[in-house]
Amino acid sequence: MSISNAELRSDQSVGIVETQYYRFADPPQRFVLESGEELGPITVAYETYGVLNEHNSNAVLILHALTGDAHAAGRHAGETRPGWWEEMIGPGKAFDTDKYYVICSNVLGGCKGTTGPASINPETGKRYDLDFPVITISDLVKVQCRLIDALGIDRLLAVAGGSMGGMQGLEWLTAHRERLHSAIIIASAARHSPQQIAFNEVGRQAIMADPAWRDGRYGGNPPAKGLAVARMIGHITYMSEGSMAEKFGRRLSDELPSHRFSNGFEVEEYLRYNGHRFVERFDANSYLYITKAMDTFDISRGRALHHALARVKAKVMLVAFKSDWLYPVAQSREIARACKLADVDTTYCEIDSTYGHDAFLLEVEEESHLVKHFLIKVSQQLERV
Amino acid sequence: MSISNAELRSDQSVGIVETQYYRFADPPQRFVLESGEELGPITVAYETYGVLNEHNSNAVLILHALTGDAHAAGRHAGETRPGWWEEMIGPGKAFDTDKYYVICSNVLGGCKGTTGPASINPETGKRYDLDFPVITISDLVKVQCRLIDALGIDRLLAVAGGSMGGMQGLEWLTAHRERLHSAIIIASAARHSPQQIAFNEVGRQAIMADPAWRDGRYGGNPPAKGLAVARMIGHITYMSEGSMAEKFGRRLSDELPSHRFSNGFEVEEYLRYNGHRFVERFDANSYLYITKAMDTFDISRGRALHHALARVKAKVMLVAFKSDWLYPVAQSREIARACKLADVDTTYCEIDSTYGHDAFLLEVEEESHLVKHFLIKVSQQLERV
Repeated sequence: MSISNAELRSDQSVGIVETQYYRFADPPQRFVLESGEELGPITVAYETYGVLNEHNSNAVLILHALTGDAHAAGRHAGETRPGWWEEMIGPGKAFDTDKYYVICSNVLGGCKGTTGPASINPETGKRYDLDFPVITISDLVKVQCRLIDALGIDRLLAVAGGSMGGMQGLEWLTAHRERLHSAIIIASAARHSPQQIAFNEVGRQAIMADPAWRDGRYGGNPPAKGLAVARMIGHITYMSEGSMAEKFGRRLSDELPSHRFSNGFEVEEYLRYNGHRFVERFDANSYLYITKAMDTFDISRGRALHHALARVKAKVMLVAFKSDWLYPVAQSREIARACKLADVDTTYCEIDSTYGHDAFLLEVEEESHLVKHFLIKVSQQLERV
Repeated sequence: MSISNAELRSDQSVGIVETQYYRFADPPQRFVLESGEELGPITVAYETYGVLNEHNSNAVLILHALTGDAHAAGRHAGETRPGWWEEMIGPGKAFDTDKYYVICSNVLGGCKGTTGPASINPETGKRYDLDFPVITISDLVKVQCRLIDALGIDRLLAVAGGSMGGMQGLEWLTAHRERLHSAIIIASAARHSPQQIAFNEVGRQAIMADPAWRDGRYGGNPPAKGLAVARMIGHITYMSEGSMAEKFGRRLSDELPSHRFSNGFEVEEYLRYNGHRFVERFDANSYLYITKAMDTFDISRGRALHHALARVKAKVMLVAFKSDWLYPVAQSREIARACKLADVDTTYCEIDSTYGHDAFLLEVEEESHLVKHFLIKVSQQLERV
């Protein structure tokens, strides 16, 4: 992370980055989860971009979605693929690393360096697999709090994330309201609708239907076919009808048919290809645990949503995309309305995108303007105080 | 089928019915499919309700959807569950069996009595499995034509069906325009969008990912888990977000968790239950072949849709449901527009239902009015001619 600004400017990227690891809750200390169960030690994989200022007041925490990771920007040495939000994070970009100290960590339960079901359980010397405790969005965020503590940051300038990242943002906003000045919640929801739960459940069932899953004890031989099917379902819900029509139409694929009835359309090849590629980079048990954490998340926790948001002092920006049918605009509007009722300083923006849910990763230009100006306004208000 | 009207009146049902079988294309005769491949003998399972009049002019052919069958109305002896469109077919009902001779047959490639991949291939003495030829909606309809011939019907008063039934209706309308006076096309499409293809493809992938599928040669041990996952995906797409919210909300299920992270929501239990029940009544290879036939269907076949509908003399009624996101109203509107451009006598009705795609089976009251009046009008015009 020791890259000078001059170097970065050249390609507007943070350049070569390295994932770092923070470990806590070493025995006999344990981390208490929302379920009451304990877990430890916990390792958190994270990356940082930019420089923390002398008042430790310019930190922005990026919160990733279901299959994301800590590698949000720049490139790992020897790799060509940049971080998942490369276009939004860097010098001069929306999350401007010349101004802000940007942090992104892999979530608890994940499989990209943070402790999860594929990690070794120190008590048994084997992978946790299904002995891994139930986790919630609240647990994910508490782990992030510990990381922020370790980095010497008392209060974040902002948290920001889309989809499941937005859920974590809402959790920060309500459960840790003294620890942030603002939150950017993109294409997200206060809780999953039964339809969202249903899509996740079918993904889980596809994984668990694969005999290779072996009740979670698959070791190095993952339930590849089941996980691929789960990912295919995900892909359909991330795109819009319109973006699929534009990208594929009814064009036929050149792929050779594997059975006489199987030659088909480009969209089919796309789904199969992406489904199978996903297996190389994601753990099936993590998929089960994290989707379940999303499904059980409910920021209002039985109260009216605006009561859950009472006494929130942070400024909020909500962004939704018109063609997003997985997290429809109505869900963001509901949060916006509750914020207003709770007298939270709120901006709500609806972007006229055709990309569906994927828009939070793709509608970079409009999203950049919104984020950039929002963060400048939040920073200026801080300076005035 | 020899039930007097007096008997039927009692419960407004056609009463006890029996599936009948018509066999044709016995060797050396063969039935030539759209692909050029030949198939035979072919057995067609069908049921009829009501009485064919002396002019053979009151026949209505009901066309079933993906997982439907010939048993559209009444009850089989010893069974309590009525036919799948019981509320629409019977004395005094929309398809009034006091007036019309109603026929419903299981589609080619199906698994409910009509020849399909699970049937015995006379050449090998074994199940066809994946040796079953590729079939298209055009083939399904040609088989229906042969049945109609055998029943002595030259021209149908109407064909009617929802979803894949509507596709067959469109095929009747354009490829057999001299053989029908009207068509009722409900919640259907002139061709599948890439999103519709994608949902079908994930279902197929779920089936084929199940090792029990064994390249289609599963015999009596079907790929139950894969087929259940395919059905769960289907169920999500058949309901609307709103109908799911109304039916399940975020209520928790009483079901005991099978894993520590698996206790969950009612909607999950519903999907699992229906997924697993489906395995008892449907064949996995039939699911593959029939969904593929739906995906390759394109009534316009490279022409403008209104050119495909040119010279159609039959009257058309199109029905769509506002909350149907699997076959969105735009697809029915497109057909309606093309009908008008082709100067086809067309009625288009959009029903304000919350049931999603399932509405074609559930919105019985409004649908009944529409169908009833439409059929009366078609009959009256015939009498005047």
